[in-house]
Amino acid sequence: MSFWEQLRFNTEGLIPAIVQDNRSGRVLMMAWMNRESLEQTLATGNTVFWSRSRQKLWRKGETSGHIQIVKQIALDCDGDTLLIKVDPRGPACHEGYQSCFFRSVNSWTRELFIGEELMARPEEIYKR
Amino acid sequence: MSFWEQLRFNTEGLIPAIVQDNRSGRVLMMAWMNRESLEQTLATGNTVFWSRSRQKLWRKGETSGHIQIVKQIALDCDGDTLLIKVDPRGPACHEGYQSCFFRSVNSWTRELFIGEELMARPEEIYKR
Repeated sequence: MSFWEQLRFNTEGLIPAIVQDNRSGRVLMMAWMNRESLEQTLATGNTVFWSRSRQKLWRKGETSGHIQIVKQIALDCDGDTLLIKVDPRGPACHEGYQSCFFRSVNSWTRELFIGEELMARPEEIYKR
Repeated sequence: MSFWEQLRFNTEGLIPAIVQDNRSGRVLMMAWMNRESLEQTLATGNTVFWSRSRQKLWRKGETSGHIQIVKQIALDCDGDTLLIKVDPRGPACHEGYQSCFFRSVNSWTRELFIGEELMARPEEIYKR
């Protein structure tokens, strides 16, 4: 069963990619890939996404240095979502948290609270 | 910080929801929610999605019995993706696997292989 034949990109030519820390199991982020970014991810062994806001390839870590080394790529049953297990070299989130999902909902008040420690200050991530 | 104010649904009024097993950390599936399905998820404590193919609310487990009890809901930094940690009562996948991401890519051949054990036969899931 060929991986490429089973993939279903959406009408914009994109597929969502969930990124998970291979060791801790923590879900780090969700971003989008097009065919080219997925090809580059497979070829380089580091995650490369498609930035919908900038409309260009986004090599994760190209400015921050916080690359993600790909350990495994899984595809879901209907072929329209990727799960990428990585070894992250630094926080995934541009706000300095290990995971972009650092805010959780309080089930009683419906307010958000921050459930993670800050790993780096955002202004330091992009200063080097 | 109100949860609802921070949420950013897409142009179709949907937001992707990653579902993760709260104990094992395994990523089980990715599905979509609209405002109503998210309200029902919060109100009932079980996951309720929006089925894009059937264009209706999809109460996970309504035919299979394999409900997902919500333990935590997290929101990512730009507010456009949810991470829902659950206690699953049966396999998430309609094909009988615990996780919909049961196929992985062989990094050399680019072929898919099945990396998980089948938990239930699909024909048995929907027979009851």
